[in-house]
Parts: sequence; C-alpha cells; structure tokens
Amino acid sequence: MDDLTNEEIEAVFCLADEMAESMGEQAGVCRGKIMASLFFEPSTRTRLSFEAAMLRLGGQVITAVDIGATSLAKGESIADMARVVGSYADIIVIRHPWEGAARVVADYAGVPVINAGDGGHEHPTQTLLDLYTIRKERGAIKGLKIALWGDLKYGRTVHSLACALARFGASILFRPGPGLEMPEHVVRKLTKEYGGELRKCDVGDQPTRGDLFSLDAIYVTPSTPHQLAMMPDISIQVELEKGVDAIYVTRFQKERHAQGDGVQGSGTGYPVVDKRLLKEKTFRETLVMHPLPRIDELAHELDADPRSMYFKQAARGVPIRMALTSLLLGARQLDASTVREPAGARKTDYPVYDRGFGVMCQNRNCVSVNEKRYIKPEFRIVSRRPLTLMCIYCEHEVHPRYVASAEWHEGTLESKRYHSADSHWAGKIRLENLIAFDSESEARSRGFKPGRYTRD
Amino acid sequence: MDDLTNEEIEAVFCLADEMAESMGEQAGVCRGKIMASLFFEPSTRTRLSFEAAMLRLGGQVITAVDIGATSLAKGESIADMARVVGSYADIIVIRHPWEGAARVVADYAGVPVINAGDGGHEHPTQTLLDLYTIRKERGAIKGLKIALWGDLKYGRTVHSLACALARFGASILFRPGPGLEMPEHVVRKLTKEYGGELRKCDVGDQPTRGDLFSLDAIYVTPSTPHQLAMMPDISIQVELEKGVDAIYVTRFQKERHAQGDGVQGSGTGYPVVDKRLLKEKTFRETLVMHPLPRIDELAHELDADPRSMYFKQAARGVPIRMALTSLLLGARQLDASTVREPAGARKTDYPVYDRGFGVMCQNRNCVSVNEKRYIKPEFRIVSRRPLTLMCIYCEHEVHPRYVASAEWHEGTLESKRYHSADSHWAGKIRLENLIAFDSESEARSRGFKPGRYTRD
Amino acid sequence: MDDLTNEEIEAVFCLADEMAESMGEQAGVCRGKIMASLFFEPSTRTRLSFEAAMLRLGGQVITAVDIGATSLAKGESIADMARVVGSYADIIVIRHPWEGAARVVADYAGVPVINAGDGGHEHPTQTLLDLYTIRKERGAIKGLKIALWGDLKYGRTVHSLACALARFGASILFRPGPGLEMPEHVVRKLTKEYGGELRKCDVGDQPTRGDLFSLDAIYVTPSTPHQLAMMPDISIQVELEKGVDAIYVTRFQKERHAQGDGVQGSGTGYPVVDKRLLKEKTFRETLVMHPLPRIDELAHELDADPRSMYFKQAARGVPIRMALTSLLLGARQLDASTVREPAGARKTDYPVYDRGFGVMCQNRNCVSVNEKRYIKPEFRIVSRRPLTLMCIYCEHEVHPRYVASAEWHEGTLESKRYHSADSHWAGKIRLENLIAFDSESEARSRGFKPGRYTRD
Repeated sequence: MDDLTNEEIEAVFCLADEMAESMGEQAGVCRGKIMASLFFEPSTRTRLSFEAAMLRLGGQVITAVDIGATSLAKGESIADMARVVGSYADIIVIRHPWEGAARVVADYAGVPVINAGDGGHEHPTQTLLDLYTIRKERGAIKGLKIALWGDLKYGRTVHSLACALARFGASILFRPGPGLEMPEHVVRKLTKEYGGELRKCDVGDQPTRGDLFSLDAIYVTPSTPHQLAMMPDISIQVELEKGVDAIYVTRFQKERHAQGDGVQGSGTGYPVVDKRLLKEKTFRETLVMHPLPRIDELAHELDADPRSMYFKQAARGVPIRMALTSLLLGARQLDASTVREPAGARKTDYPVYDRGFGVMCQNRNCVSVNEKRYIKPEFRIVSRRPLTLMCIYCEHEVHPRYVASAEWHEGTLESKRYHSADSHWAGKIRLENLIAFDSESEARSRGFKPGRYTRD
Repeated sequence: MDDLTNEEIEAVFCLADEMAESMGEQAGVCRGKIMASLFFEPSTRTRLSFEAAMLRLGGQVITAVDIGATSLAKGESIADMARVVGSYADIIVIRHPWEGAARVVADYAGVPVINAGDGGHEHPTQTLLDLYTIRKERGAIKGLKIALWGDLKYGRTVHSLACALARFGASILFRPGPGLEMPEHVVRKLTKEYGGELRKCDVGDQPTRGDLFSLDAIYVTPSTPHQLAMMPDISIQVELEKGVDAIYVTRFQKERHAQGDGVQGSGTGYPVVDKRLLKEKTFRETLVMHPLPRIDELAHELDADPRSMYFKQAARGVPIRMALTSLLLGARQLDASTVREPAGARKTDYPVYDRGFGVMCQNRNCVSVNEKRYIKPEFRIVSRRPLTLMCIYCEHEVHPRYVASAEWHEGTLESKRYHSADSHWAGKIRLENLIAFDSESEARSRGFKPGRYTRD
Repeated sequence: MDDLTNEEIEAVFCLADEMAESMGEQAGVCRGKIMASLFFEPSTRTRLSFEAAMLRLGGQVITAVDIGATSLAKGESIADMARVVGSYADIIVIRHPWEGAARVVADYAGVPVINAGDGGHEHPTQTLLDLYTIRKERGAIKGLKIALWGDLKYGRTVHSLACALARFGASILFRPGPGLEMPEHVVRKLTKEYGGELRKCDVGDQPTRGDLFSLDAIYVTPSTPHQLAMMPDISIQVELEKGVDAIYVTRFQKERHAQGDGVQGSGTGYPVVDKRLLKEKTFRETLVMHPLPRIDELAHELDADPRSMYFKQAARGVPIRMALTSLLLGARQLDASTVREPAGARKTDYPVYDRGFGVMCQNRNCVSVNEKRYIKPEFRIVSRRPLTLMCIYCEHEVHPRYVASAEWHEGTLESKRYHSADSHWAGKIRLENLIAFDSESEARSRGFKPGRYTRD
C-alpha cells in the first residue's frame, strides 16, 4: 500500500469504475500478455479473482499452486524463481507465507509484481477493494467512522485497512476479541506516520447496552477536526449515537496464532455480528464488511440484509485487479487529471540502516531471515530512544541492545567500542555512522570491545 | 438429470453432433466468457474434458483443484464459495464429495452451474455422454437391451444411467458383483417414477454357459411392450439369444465402500469383461462401454475390438459438454423444432416436507447434514406406508419413526401429541400438516407428548 | 533426443531464433489448438515454460498437476490416460516418474507428445535449450570444450547433454562429485554409438591448483581431430590452459539417490562453482550454465557475472518450446534449406528383441515394469559378448544369463535347450532366433531344458 499515493489509489478506483461498467469490453486491453499466478500458500478466492481479472482483460494466465512442496523441497531461492518466471510472464502475482516475500520477488523478477498476500504482513489488493467498497457506497472516505472488529492482532487485512483509512482521513473504532488488540507497530504507524491520535476507551465510556459494542480504542485523524477531536470531553457514547459508517468484521486467524498462546477464537467472547447487533440505532445505516472466508463471527442471517457488503466486496475484487493489472502492464495509463502529485504515501522519511551486518530481523517468518544466502538485512531507523529499527521487508521492529560508531580513528582499536543502546553515549552517534548489534558476542565477533556505557 | 426433459436431452445431442462435426469452428461461441472449474475432489479426466470444451468454444477457464484443503480448513461454507465465484465467472462446474452439493452451489451462485459429480449421488454429464454414445451407435435408445455390469451399489454413473435408460424406454439387465446389487432407492425410482417392472432372475433362468452372464434382475419399461414384457413366461435365456445391445461395465468403487463391509472388488467373483465373454453369440454386436478409469474388470485385449466404445465415450464428453455449456450460457439456443414440450422429466410430483425442523437426512455425506448452518432440510414425501421421505439434496430416503399434526387447537396442549409413523392415526394426518420426527426425544423437545398410538 | 536428427535440431534452433526475435507476433500460430500439460511429478518451472510457450503461440492449455494421487489411486494405466487426453487436446506434454513413460504416452495418444522429463531417463527440451544456449553464445558447438560438473550419475540433463554434445562434435570434460561418475550406459552410448574416445585422467594430469578442477575423464569426439585427439601425449593441463568454453553445473539429485547409498551432496567434496574458481585463467571466458534449481553448488555471487548463463538458459526455454510445439502441431514447417537429410540420429541400428517373453527390464522405475498389463518388453541387442540388451523404454541395459534358439526341430523336444549366455554355443544362435532368459526357472517354465553349455 505504501507504494501508491492517495492520488494513485483514487486513479485506480476511477479505472475500476470504468472496468466494472463495461466488463465485457475490456478483452483487448491486455491481449498477448501473460500473468504468472504463483501461490506458495493456497488461496482459491484471491487467486481466481486475479485470474478472472486477467482473462477479462484479454490476457492469459499460467498458474502454480503446487510450488510450495516442489521447489522448497529442492531448496530453491525465491529470487531464482522470480527471475525465471519473470522471463516467462509479463506480470507476476505472488502469495507466499514469508513476510516481505513479494518485495524480494519484485526486486528480482524484472517484470511488475503484485503482492497477493505475504504471510501476516500485507494483502494490498484486499485493502484496495475494501477501500473501494467504502468509497463507492459512501462517496468519500474522509470523515467516516469505521469500526474494525475481531482479530485485530493477526488480521493483516485490518492492519493495512487501518493505515489506509488513516491516510484518507477516516476515524477508526477498535473492537477486538479478547487478547486480540491491534499490535504496537500498527498503532505506531497510525500515530507517528499519519499523525492521528489514539484514545483508549474506559469502560465507563461505553454504551450501556451490554457488551454488544465495547470499544477498545478510537483513532482520530488530524485531517478531520470533527466533533470528537475538537471536544474531547464529549463522551464516545454521544458520538456513537450518530452512527457508524461501516463495521469491518474479521475471522479469528487461527492459522497465525501460535499453539498455546491462550487466545481463542469464536465462542469465547469473540464478537459476533448478527441481526441482534444490527438492530441498534448506531448501526442503522452501517455497511457490514468482511474479507471472507467467514466462520461464525458473521451470521448467515444477514446475507439478504441490504447493509451486507461482503459479497459485493468480493465481486469488486475483479475490477480493482483489472485496473491495477492494466496499469502495471502499461496497457492503461493513470488519468493525469486525477493524479495531482506523485507524492510518496509514506509521510516520514526514516534514515536507512543497511550495513549488511550487525542487527538481524527477529521475525522468523521474515523473508530476510529465511533467505539469508542472498538478502542483506536492511532497516529504517524509526526511533532513537528507545532505539527502534524497522525491517524493510516484513516491517517488524527490532530493538538492538548495543551500538557502536563506524567513525573511529583508523588503527586505533581503542576507539572501537560498543555501548548500550539506551546509554547517553549511544545518542551521540550520528545515524549515518550507527552500527547496531543484537548481542555483545556479535559486537565482539566484529572486533569491538565493551565501552564505558555497556551495562548488562 | 431430472432438470432436463427427454426433449431437452435430445436437443443437447443434436447440438453435440453439430459441435463434433465442426469442432474447429466453435471458437466464437463463448468468447469473453469464463468458466470456473471447481474440483473439491480430484478428477483429472472430467475436469480436463470440461475445460477443453470451454476452450474449444472460445471461452476461458479458471480452475481450482486445491480447494478442499484450503477452504475447508478455514471453515468456509460452499454457499459463500458459490456466491463469490459466481461473481467472478459466467458459469461454474463443480465436483464435490458431498451429495447434493451442486444443487446448493446452483442455489447461491447466481450463474449457471453444472454438476461434475457430487459424491455418490450423480454425475449427469457422464450419463449424457453414455446415452449419447448409445444413441449415436444404435440410432435410438427405445427398445434396446442394456446390461449394467459390476458395482451397481456405489457406481453413481450406473444409477443415473439406469434412470435415463428407463426414461428413454430401454430394458436393463443387471449383472452385479457379489453384494453389489442396485440399491433400493434406485429400484424405487425405476419402478415407481418411470413405471417399469423389475423381475428378479432365478438361477434356473440363466444361460447355461457357466457364470459368464448370471443376471440378477431385468428391468422392463412400460413404454416398450416387447416380447419379454408381453410374454412373461418366455425364459430370459431365449430373450438373451437375440443379443444385448450394450454392456456398461463399471469398476469396483473402492473409495466409496466402508472399510470392513466385507465386499471385495475384482478377483473374487467380480464380473470381468474380456475376449472370452465377447465370443458368446449374445454379445456379437454388443457395444462395450465403461466410464473409465478401469482396473481389471475390462481387459486391455479388447481395446482394438470394434465393439469397444469406452475411448469413443470419453472423446464424446467434449462435444456433449460444449453443447451443454453453450446452451447454459445462452450462447446457443435449443432448437425449437426438436423440443416439443418443456415437460418436467420427473413424472411424479411428490408433496414437499420443508418445516425446517423434525426429521433430518440420515446420510452423513449429504450436503444438508454438513452445512446445517444455513441449509434447511427439505424432503419429498414419496410413500405414506411405510412413511418415506426423500431428501431433495442427496435423494436418500429416510423413514421417520414418529409423526404429529401441525393442526391442533391453539392453546390446547392436550392435542399436541406425537404417534408412531406406522400407526393407524398417522395415516389420518393431512400431508400439508405432517410433522415427522426421528425420535421421541426430538418430538418432546418441540413440545409434543406421546399420543395413544405411540409404541416403542 | 534420438527422435531428432542434427539437422532437425538446427532447424528448431533457427525457428527458436525467429520466435525469440518477434515473441509478440506469434499469437496466430497455434490459435484454436489445445495443449494438455500433464505433470505426474511436480515441476513448476518446466510446466510454466511449456504453458507460456503455448499461450505465446495463441494456443490454449489444460493442465493437470494433481494426476499422480488421483488416477494412480484408481489404478488407471497411463495408456488409457493417454488415449483419453489425446481425444481432448491437440498435443500432450508429459512429465512422469517412470522411465520411458513419455514413449508409452506417445504410442497411445494419437496426438504429438513432448517428453517433459521421464524419471531419470530424459528431459529433452532441457537438452535442447542447453544446446541452444551454447550455440547462440559461441556460434557453433563443434570443437568446443564443455565441462560437466557435479552429479553425473543421476543428473538426467547431463546424460542427454553429453550425448547431444558428442553428436555435434564437442569435447566433454567430466568433473563429478565423489561417487557421482557418469554411468556405464552413457559412456557406452558416447563411445559406441557416437564413436568418440573416453580417456580417464590420472591425478598427475591435473592442474596443480588444488582440487578446483580435478577431472575424472575427457571425451574426445572423432569428428573433431583437435590437438588433444591428435597428440595424445600432450597433457590435459596444457589443453586446459586454452580455456573451457562452458561449465555445466548440476545440483546433487537427492531425490534419485537411494537412501543409504552412502553418497552425499554438497558440503562433502561436491564441487562448487564460485568467484574463486572463475578467477582461474581456464575459465576466463567460460559460460556458466545450470539447469536450475540450484542449491549450494553455484554461488549467488555469480549472478551478475556476464559469464553466467543460467537465467538466460531458462528464458530461452520459451522460444525453444514454442518452436518445437509449433512444428509438432504442423503450424510451422521445418525450413527445407536447413534440413539436408532426414537421417536418423542414432547411428547404430541394433537388432531388436521383442518376443514378449523371456528377459525383462530390471529397472524398477521402467514404465514397462510398472505397466506390465499391456506393455510387451522390447529390447535392442547392443552387444553379443557379453550379451547386452537395452530396454527400448528406459534404455537401461540387462545382461540375460541364459539363451536358447527359437529354431528347433518341431516336435523334437530334445532340441529345446537353454545355455549360458556367455557359452560358445550362445554365439552361434542367429539373432533373429535368440531367446533370452533371466533365470533357469524361467527357461524351464517355457519348456526348455538345460543344455550342455549351462554352467552356474
């Protein structure tokens, strides 16, 4: 999502509108082009949607859903796979269990690459179709109140959607299942990069109708100085009376939860959206959204309800993917009038840490950890105190415990010292000279000695 | 098969003839259309045949053979899958292990759906190509003598074919393997719905040439008053001397037999069709048919024999599926001159039981049992004594043990009583008021008390 | 590979050049044709390359990667599968774990068949693209020095490539991993059929730079009377100083090694190609080739090196497969000017042994062993002393222990005797009368008695 500006996203939506209106007339757009659809993790729905999109554009598809077993068994790198398939096809769609895998494929393929889900990291076309549905049904996103519901911890679609909503100026209401709160790194991105404010909700703030809608927190964007932001003492309850624009429900991400982390899915406090909930005045005109598949968190009795958007969402995946594919293949251009400035979506430009040694990403699902043979670790330094580096592949954060400076008197080994990352001295190192270590042994193996400010 | 009238089937055959004759000129018929080929159970042959058919028509295909593991693991309903894929594709071909699954997909998809096999229930395009082959080789079906051979118990293709043959007025000779006789519900359909007569064969009736062709039963349609029907005392042997028009051989359906049901496949009395058998005068001009794959029940030595039809059968699957697909997509119309009347194929219109509570389908492979969350049980009442309900999904029969009437004096709980299904009283309930229960406890849980006629 | 003459191979290369130069303009060549891509063993890369080739030609593809589990479970023969799929598609691409399987499919399908890998036997389109890459980069193959590197024992691509190089007049340097020498039957083919000479290398011959490039043997073709062939006493070292034209690296074929055969892959003496090796003067202008996937035998650090050809090789698989497919479908013709004579590639015409009984192929991966029900064993008699028969399916050799003559006095059982295959008497049997047995019991079961020359 960070590869697209808000203006580019708007342009994709305009093109998707056009595609949806004349679906049968797009068969010449990508004629003669081949999409490689590579699913290292099965996902029938997403794959079929991409393939239908390419076929509607008049292109062709080569598919591999069997790759996991095959090439992992033979020990092949995804970079090699990317290079080879990039020489067969004109565009690659990739789903892979490792976080950051799509970025690596894009680095090596030599053709455009679309991320169709990389582990718990991102699933950007899902986010695009979610956003597209909200915009289409409500006309705009700015100023809306969107509730995120369920497994906010591992639901990658809610992470991406939360950031996208923040970028477009919506407020977000968090209603997690027990123990399934939005993780810190998403909250950091929302508050630090998009500059909004997160307010935790007290129990006292809650509406009095039982636990139907017990909020955990509310995110308010700076771009929308609506009532809630300007008058902080007005209770959430009053605000909610005015209605929620959309509930985005997610299933319990069973497969991403570690065995025995004590968190359980539906049936034990996991919030369920059903007719009873939707009878509340707050939800009278609320769009009910879900990325599907659902299990029990969204009742089948709602399927015929006009507020239910989830099948429309799925259907809109086709025009959205048609728009994106045709743009990436250069078969269609972005409408110049809609794109005002090619501004980067990411507001904050962090310094980069790319020494190739020292600190490593600690996320064992990160592609950089699994493909060490050829991927050099790289981070953004997102905070100095506490020192926080964000992996550019999986966007997980690491907190190195020791630092050193690359600026020392040549030959004077005495100056080659490492220090605690939280020491006074650490703050003095210029970022371009920073060397970060996970452990003292690693620092020593690189020829550094303990400095004055090394505790532990 | 019941969705098509005999006239519609004839029209499909005419169109298939046309498709087969100019296979290379059909590439414009379904241009721009997408078929979703969803195989929850692998079946390479059937899938490839459907996909080749769609491609020959100029359409495109999106395929999923990996769905079983994927979405079942995530707990998704097939109704949701149907709705989503129905928004991607213009037509759906579905194979699923649950009986009645294709019907559920058709109920929800919003686009035409073709059943490519639903468990042990039906595989109608196989039946169409079987029938098409017989008609093409013999000119007509009426009055033919067709032998069904092998696993008549679990071979869904022989169940469907038997009914289709009966509808078109052929006689059927049953030659099952030991313990593999045609099941009761098929016999009921043949005799009750199509009005024919089934005669069990005595050992004495058999031809004297060993156990080459030891018949179990013969089915005679009412529409063909041929010699056998008119002169019941003429022995089967004499009739057989005139020759059998086709032998339809099936393999032992190992995967559908329960472990330890004692029934064994080839090698232990399972009838084998080979050169020796075909030397008999009875088979001099007999078509040898098989739905494939074969194991040992049909000898490879027959492959070059001009009577062998099994590879022709398979090849004819393509034009048959082209015809059906183009008709369902509205790309071709049924020839009005061949279709005389849009009469329902099912001759008998049974009363419907759709209370949504009470009796349940007892077939654990039935889609209604596996997708209880949103499917309301529904039955046809095919017999009153003994009370027999047929599930509209899997067509298995249930025999409820208790009944009650929905007509009682409001407020007078005394009249809310349940009774034995085989009691005198039970017969007095009007069918539109019938409530049927599998057990007394279920009846009680619905607020009914034991009546006078409750035994057990 | 033996199905194509050198001239036909050259013509395929010319057509591939044309395809590669105007890839976007081939979409009319195979319009309306369907390729069936049948992978009984997964191989994403090869499959996608074939499918991309067909789609670039404007054709369509039906794919089955799930067949193994499906039809093997149902006990189907590959001949039946071939016949059925041959009635759906216009051309078949087949990968199968049994050696010789592609030949059986070709025998039964009724449409052109391309072997995409049959167990450890052949993978001819890989060989074509390897050869094409060498010819394209070096202008010609005759007189080149090509080093084969790694697992020469089980790497089917190196077996085929070695024979192809010999046919085109290149010299071959063998550098196997420990215990992974080129097998006898390949050496026989090289020396006997292509008439070249194989010289084992002494340790003393080796270059003195450690074990960087410790050759096992050198193959010199008769067609290239270069320095090495003419002056055998010049040391290999001097020859190598002039440079190697290409190194063809292969991974350790872990999946084909029997458990516990004691041979190990990379890490224990398996030769690795990396920057250090390529710094040698010998390799200054050497093409680095690899069929991919690689594991550790080829360093990622070489990827940007202009000598690295492996990604180019993979990319060239598409035009090569386009050329071959369009030729086999008759959509393009061989350029008459390039094909001078339709001479058989196989120089030696061996007598055929096809009695249908007696000796059997001993290779348990051979298709003739696995599909005994309908495949009659057939051999070429490649040597009389020791008596050596080569299976026409898998090309493995057998050495029958007993022989008899089909020429005996009718009725005189006394003359029906079997003898040791290495006896004087055995050599007197005319080849057209030869009967060969694996064991005495087999000979006796066919009614033969021990002869005078039966030892044991």
